[in-house]
Amino acid sequence: MTAAEVAANSRIADPSLAPEGEQKIQWVARHSPVLNRLARERLADGALRGRRVAVVVHLEAKTAYLATLLAEAGADVVAAGSNPGSTQDSVAAALVARGIRVFARRGVSREDFMEDLLAVADTAPEIIIDDGAEVTSRIVEHRPELREQLRGVTEETTTGLGRLRAMEAAGRLTFPAIAANDAACKHLFDNRYGTAQATMQAILRLTNLSGAGKRYCVVGYGHVGKGLASYAEGLGGIVSVIEIDPVAGVEAFMDGHRIANREDALADADYVITATGGIEAVSRDDFALMKDGAVLANAGHHDREIDVGALEELAGPGEEVRPGVSRFVLDEKRIYVLVRGALVNIAGLDGNPVEIMDLSFAVQALSAHHLASNELEPGLHRFPPQLDREIAQTKLASLGVELDELRPSQRAFLEQWTMWE
Amino acid sequence: MTAAEVAANSRIADPSLAPEGEQKIQWVARHSPVLNRLARERLADGALRGRRVAVVVHLEAKTAYLATLLAEAGADVVAAGSNPGSTQDSVAAALVARGIRVFARRGVSREDFMEDLLAVADTAPEIIIDDGAEVTSRIVEHRPELREQLRGVTEETTTGLGRLRAMEAAGRLTFPAIAANDAACKHLFDNRYGTAQATMQAILRLTNLSGAGKRYCVVGYGHVGKGLASYAEGLGGIVSVIEIDPVAGVEAFMDGHRIANREDALADADYVITATGGIEAVSRDDFALMKDGAVLANAGHHDREIDVGALEELAGPGEEVRPGVSRFVLDEKRIYVLVRGALVNIAGLDGNPVEIMDLSFAVQALSAHHLASNELEPGLHRFPPQLDREIAQTKLASLGVELDELRPSQRAFLEQWTMWE
Amino acid sequence: MTAAEVAANSRIADPSLAPEGEQKIQWVARHSPVLNRLARERLADGALRGRRVAVVVHLEAKTAYLATLLAEAGADVVAAGSNPGSTQDSVAAALVARGIRVFARRGVSREDFMEDLLAVADTAPEIIIDDGAEVTSRIVEHRPELREQLRGVTEETTTGLGRLRAMEAAGRLTFPAIAANDAACKHLFDNRYGTAQATMQAILRLTNLSGAGKRYCVVGYGHVGKGLASYAEGLGGIVSVIEIDPVAGVEAFMDGHRIANREDALADADYVITATGGIEAVSRDDFALMKDGAVLANAGHHDREIDVGALEELAGPGEEVRPGVSRFVLDEKRIYVLVRGALVNIAGLDGNPVEIMDLSFAVQALSAHHLASNELEPGLHRFPPQLDREIAQTKLASLGVELDELRPSQRAFLEQWTMWE
Amino acid sequence: MTAAEVAANSRIADPSLAPEGEQKIQWVARHSPVLNRLARERLADGALRGRRVAVVVHLEAKTAYLATLLAEAGADVVAAGSNPGSTQDSVAAALVARGIRVFARRGVSREDFMEDLLAVADTAPEIIIDDGAEVTSRIVEHRPELREQLRGVTEETTTGLGRLRAMEAAGRLTFPAIAANDAACKHLFDNRYGTAQATMQAILRLTNLSGAGKRYCVVGYGHVGKGLASYAEGLGGIVSVIEIDPVAGVEAFMDGHRIANREDALADADYVITATGGIEAVSRDDFALMKDGAVLANAGHHDREIDVGALEELAGPGEEVRPGVSRFVLDEKRIYVLVRGALVNIAGLDGNPVEIMDLSFAVQALSAHHLASNELEPGLHRFPPQLDREIAQTKLASLGVELDELRPSQRAFLEQWTMWE
Repeated sequence: MTAAEVAANSRIADPSLAPEGEQKIQWVARHSPVLNRLARERLADGALRGRRVAVVVHLEAKTAYLATLLAEAGADVVAAGSNPGSTQDSVAAALVARGIRVFARRGVSREDFMEDLLAVADTAPEIIIDDGAEVTSRIVEHRPELREQLRGVTEETTTGLGRLRAMEAAGRLTFPAIAANDAACKHLFDNRYGTAQATMQAILRLTNLSGAGKRYCVVGYGHVGKGLASYAEGLGGIVSVIEIDPVAGVEAFMDGHRIANREDALADADYVITATGGIEAVSRDDFALMKDGAVLANAGHHDREIDVGALEELAGPGEEVRPGVSRFVLDEKRIYVLVRGALVNIAGLDGNPVEIMDLSFAVQALSAHHLASNELEPGLHRFPPQLDREIAQTKLASLGVELDELRPSQRAFLEQWTMWE
Repeated sequence: MTAAEVAANSRIADPSLAPEGEQKIQWVARHSPVLNRLARERLADGALRGRRVAVVVHLEAKTAYLATLLAEAGADVVAAGSNPGSTQDSVAAALVARGIRVFARRGVSREDFMEDLLAVADTAPEIIIDDGAEVTSRIVEHRPELREQLRGVTEETTTGLGRLRAMEAAGRLTFPAIAANDAACKHLFDNRYGTAQATMQAILRLTNLSGAGKRYCVVGYGHVGKGLASYAEGLGGIVSVIEIDPVAGVEAFMDGHRIANREDALADADYVITATGGIEAVSRDDFALMKDGAVLANAGHHDREIDVGALEELAGPGEEVRPGVSRFVLDEKRIYVLVRGALVNIAGLDGNPVEIMDLSFAVQALSAHHLASNELEPGLHRFPPQLDREIAQTKLASLGVELDELRPSQRAFLEQWTMWE
Repeated sequence: MTAAEVAANSRIADPSLAPEGEQKIQWVARHSPVLNRLARERLADGALRGRRVAVVVHLEAKTAYLATLLAEAGADVVAAGSNPGSTQDSVAAALVARGIRVFARRGVSREDFMEDLLAVADTAPEIIIDDGAEVTSRIVEHRPELREQLRGVTEETTTGLGRLRAMEAAGRLTFPAIAANDAACKHLFDNRYGTAQATMQAILRLTNLSGAGKRYCVVGYGHVGKGLASYAEGLGGIVSVIEIDPVAGVEAFMDGHRIANREDALADADYVITATGGIEAVSRDDFALMKDGAVLANAGHHDREIDVGALEELAGPGEEVRPGVSRFVLDEKRIYVLVRGALVNIAGLDGNPVEIMDLSFAVQALSAHHLASNELEPGLHRFPPQLDREIAQTKLASLGVELDELRPSQRAFLEQWTMWE
Repeated sequence: MTAAEVAANSRIADPSLAPEGEQKIQWVARHSPVLNRLARERLADGALRGRRVAVVVHLEAKTAYLATLLAEAGADVVAAGSNPGSTQDSVAAALVARGIRVFARRGVSREDFMEDLLAVADTAPEIIIDDGAEVTSRIVEHRPELREQLRGVTEETTTGLGRLRAMEAAGRLTFPAIAANDAACKHLFDNRYGTAQATMQAILRLTNLSGAGKRYCVVGYGHVGKGLASYAEGLGGIVSVIEIDPVAGVEAFMDGHRIANREDALADADYVITATGGIEAVSRDDFALMKDGAVLANAGHHDREIDVGALEELAGPGEEVRPGVSRFVLDEKRIYVLVRGALVNIAGLDGNPVEIMDLSFAVQALSAHHLASNELEPGLHRFPPQLDREIAQTKLASLGVELDELRPSQRAFLEQWTMWE
């Protein structure tokens, strides 16, 4: 496609923002050793050449760099955002300038967002790098005939995997899907360190309030929640955890956090942070339990974890008292919601740290490559553990670390079942 | 059996130590809410009545309390230690006084230890609670005919599971075995918090040296290694990690530790702690890499993680310069080995904290009950996740915590795969 | 003064920015319990009425709120920034709109900055709230005759106190000065928690890089440096400390950091952060010691802690590759300097957290009140400890905490020197 | 003195324990780089030759090594314990075997303890290394005529300094006294890291309970309390702090602890640890506020911080249910007191870590040397800061660290008060 054709076949907010976005992508390129070494080298075998690949992940610079690498490897790439609240218009513009079609505009309505995703669907992708199964589920629902051309999907999030499993249970998952989120090099680092770190930063930056001496209520003690709790404590905070899973509850307890009933945890929280991957982690009845001045932020998957709609019904539309900080007044108590419940790490900041997304997107790049190189059975697949190890090895090599290896005597020992001689 | 018969059918060091051991068991009884509530209640259904049960775990007060609960439930219990270095003679004596046969004597030779384990085997147990597969592997090797009577084994450790898998690969695992170690309520807490905490305590107590301002080299970054590294940092230490698995290596790196080549990590370590579950984690060639005054301790499974035999060949028999501290002099450098490489948390202290073993042994008690109540297929089995949840719930209930539950709208959301309406 | 007169007697960048600044000041007002309770109540006694007060501190919203409170108490306030790099033009505009004269424009030259400070001096202030002794030293040097009208100065920083001491040694401190920085409620919190937290945030925000798994070199282990090191470790970093004071060096060591020679500490640092309060904490010869990709940030007093001038001579003018990130290339190594060496917590962010500045500026407000209410001798004075206690008490009261008190028997014990009866 | 004379002029429990004590002293000698380098070298100038020196500090191996070094330097040393609960009889025996007179027996009555201290007083010491002013105050009270011979006292603890100040206020401090406790190299490390670390270890060892997932109530947030709170959090605990000083209260708050009213803090505490240096930090009315199973430990100066006497009146004499653990039953609640309220770090363990006492006793050795070398005025004196620096430098040198130094341009900058040229 010519530059003009790419532009004509894209839908973005403002092409003139491209230089700002280009600068961001170059910064990412500089700090992505695993993509630059392992992924680029692996993709060079031509397996992706000519493949139609859709990249539908929060559209910021790291995603853009992933899309660029795939295009470099010969794929026919189209990109969209997985959430209109997280799209960076400058990055979208830069991608188009780099010759990749994009359907993404920050802050558009649900209808316009649907329109963009269907535009992606209508390119009939063979491989989809998805986030929250946003485009996959729409294809299954609205473009079922396109499933035939689909070699496979690779899914970025816990939430998306839940949807793919529901789809499988409903007999609709008639194509292969790789659980990229469950790759060690994705969920162990992106969720726990990346999201957690970026979330804490975003909260403190948007509010200019102190992290020390504060009470944090973390809703959900999965990988994201564990990271949040750990960083909050590192900042000098006191953490309460709300959970539904008893084992996670005991983990929170042993990690030195307060595992608490919802009423108790919300009553004294300065910051309430959701990390469940579901909906209504903070719901209509919860707002009345909070104290004056509570700040609410979402680090989970959806803008539906905090039920802002219910809050608006209770307290009116709210007022933006600082950029990204909406104040609602309920029974004379002020409740502040950050970026109106969107993902605070992405909508309130430049997203997760570059080096951590380097690992996550190495998983995605190799996952797409795996789909292109193999004919997988329909259904959910594990990300190949050997690839996980290679990603980790490449990361360590970029740090100058060479690992120990088992000596033969050690290996022999581990493989025997008698041992007293 | 009469008291005299029990005594006659036991082999212990000194019956007169029973009062001291009894005091320890009572302390455990007081601080074991999960065993006292959930396990005792579940065992009351009579499933274990009359069953021959062997308990072969480090023989200290927590193990003794588990054995007592099984006996109370009507089982015909025999106990032995899984390692002669960790047996507490006072506890063995107290168990005999409580009417349970015991074959365990602290510090005996390999031959005598073998003799004790075979004595246990010869009671033809139907259910074995094993640690390191110590008695199971001996039965398979030396008393294969007794496998027929075996309803099943439940295994406490990572190392033991490795052996059972090797046994399965060799076609010798002709009975059911439950991977108790892999229960969430076991490995998440016992390995990471229990062993790690007790190990750090034991090191500081035996040496009276500072934990702050020290360099720690942790060999193996599994659950135990992670706990060790975290507690070491909590004490003001700087941690280097040696690993063979690259993903674990990146985890150590992201957790803020130095992931290092063996030479670098050993060169400046004040404390070297092994936690691999294998052998020769510190081997013959490593001693020369250490600095003067290095202290070596083992938190893994075996007294073979630190190759003390090789050290003795290099540096002579060593001298005990404090109780539990052996000094070896190699090329004018002093190297101190704690409890001669035995498990420092057990041999150098009263073992892991009571409340944490309460969780682990609740897994074992319910696992034994599960074996008694069900006819399982031969081979390795997972510990039922529902039991894991019940253990965690009981723990939280003992703390006065009631967990949140999913609301119907939340559950419905998690089960759907379309979500934009 | 009328609004027009205030505007005519001010020098700011753009009056139209006032609404944005006003919003920020209101946010500060909402989160400043100690200023709102204790300071406002104490200032209401009229001691400041009609007094000419100059406020010369980094001109952002917290400073503006302090100026507002003084004006509310009847003082005749004039404000300026203590550093042109940290002035927020919107806040300056809002202050003028609130009727306070301001001489402050972001990013002006040294000459223009001097002109602004002399304009403040020429209002002949009776009381000066100073930062770095910026206006005080200029008065002594360039307007010595104005010292006669000066009731006193209250100084915000470690660096400023150093200058006042030098001035005293030179016989030029002919007026009273209060060491506000040394108040417990200032340096214990502002320096250690406030500056440190805001600095870490600013670094991560400007770079979008990971805080976890990184090597930090902290130059200077005073209150700011301790906070930086602690937060860096909380983020999963490994910290090396460069110091000149051996006691601080041992503290760093015991706190679990690497106390290192300059060469070693710089060689592997991902982030180099200066916190000395002096100059050239990173100097000409140091740049060659750094690794490719090192990021430099300043959390100390001056934009002279990192010798950016020397770096420019060595590597050319640098290029801004992201907002606030200048890249210099030296011997093929990239070195990134944040906000060109200005205070990263202020120039790269909204400054220290509001609640922490609430404590610092309560010290300043009570210090100004103390100067107005008492005739102090010339020379340096300690901030009255009783006021420190009242500030802390007010803070705790705002959190609902009431402290324990000594019982008579305890007090009696502490006052006796015989104790064995 | 001959060995027989030393033995005849000593009062110890059991001379046959000497080999065990000797082993401990040799371990200390091995791990005391600062005493071995700096102190030994400085003492070699003969200033202490022939001086009568009394060492009255908790009589365990570190104290014994200090006494040995003084004797080696030619002083005529006599030693006693500062608390009968902390004396180690084996160490006392070893000291006598090394030729030093000792008056110390573990666990003796108040009367016998008084008798031992008066025996020390009656040797008419010229220099006293005191702890809690135990022997100094007795001399002033009971042997006032001996003050004339006293060149000076050097005091180890916060509590002792309080007594010396009370003595000064009463006009009875007619001799010089050095506030060794206030030396940076003493209180910064011994109190915060040493006592805190050893206290946590002792609690966990005596109880075999978990440190993770527990609520700690720390009474007193001075140096010891800060260390306790930090280590408790490092172990996975949740900390509440009780304070009387508001600034310390805000510090605890900013450090991420709960600053609480006494009732709230005691109500949910699993561990209550006193660190006030005063008396009745836990008093008669407090016991009823605690929960069933609370464990009480003292890390302060006195066995009077926990009012065990009052507890005995309320709940009877208590029963020792494990070595060092006394159980009291009050209104059907069990309350466990460790080592009956004595210093748990010393009475329940081998005392503070060797390397940390190396710093503290280097202060004491140089302090004694300073008293011997200079004629000081009566009254309290600061420990010379230059000596503090030398101790810290020696410590760093033993770690291979050489510190940075100010460059001339930096020093010039710090000494000037004008800075804009």
